[in-house]
Amino acid sequence: MFVIITYDVNEKRVGKVCKKLREYLDWTQNSVFEGEITIGKYKQCMADLNNIVNKETDSVYVYQVKNPRNIKKIVHGREKNPLDLFL
Amino acid sequence: MFVIITYDVNEKRVGKVCKKLREYLDWTQNSVFEGEITIGKYKQCMADLNNIVNKETDSVYVYQVKNPRNIKKIVHGREKNPLDLFL
Repeated sequence: MFVIITYDVNEKRVGKVCKKLREYLDWTQNSVFEGEITIGKYKQCMADLNNIVNKETDSVYVYQVKNPRNIKKIVHGREKNPLDLFL
Repeated sequence: MFVIITYDVNEKRVGKVCKKLREYLDWTQNSVFEGEITIGKYKQCMADLNNIVNKETDSVYVYQVKNPRNIKKIVHGREKNPLDLFL
C-alpha cells in the first residue's frame, strides 16, 4: 500500500522519529514521509514509532491508500531533494 | 475529491499560505491541510496559492485521491484540535 505519514512531536523526539521513518519511507518535506510499504513493514514501523513518541502530547497521522494508483501527487514550486534534509 | 496539501514555504509567507488554505480545507497539523474539495474550488485554491508562493524556493505538495473512500486516516497519539492553531 501507499502511505503518507506526518508527525507533530516534541522537538526532543523529532530526530528519532525522522530517523526511524527514513528506514521505511521516503522523506518528502518537513515532517512528511511517503512511500509504498507492505502491511508487515507498516506494522513494524508503527510499533517502532510507538516506542519513541509520547502518546499524550505527540501526534502521528497516517493516510493509507491501498492501491497506489488511486493517489496522485503534484508538486507546485520547488521539489525538495532528499539531501535537503541534511543541509 | 479528497486532497492532502503540505507546504514548505519561507516563514514570511507561512501565515498567508495557512490562511488561504483554511478557506478551502481543514487544518490537520503543522503545515498539513486535508479535506474534500470540488475540482473548481481546487483550481481556485491552487491559483490563489500560486499568487502567494515563490516558485523558486517554496514547495507545495498535493496528494489527490478522487474517491475519498480509497483513503483511510489513522491518528496515533494526540489528535490535534483545530483550535490548537490559534494557541
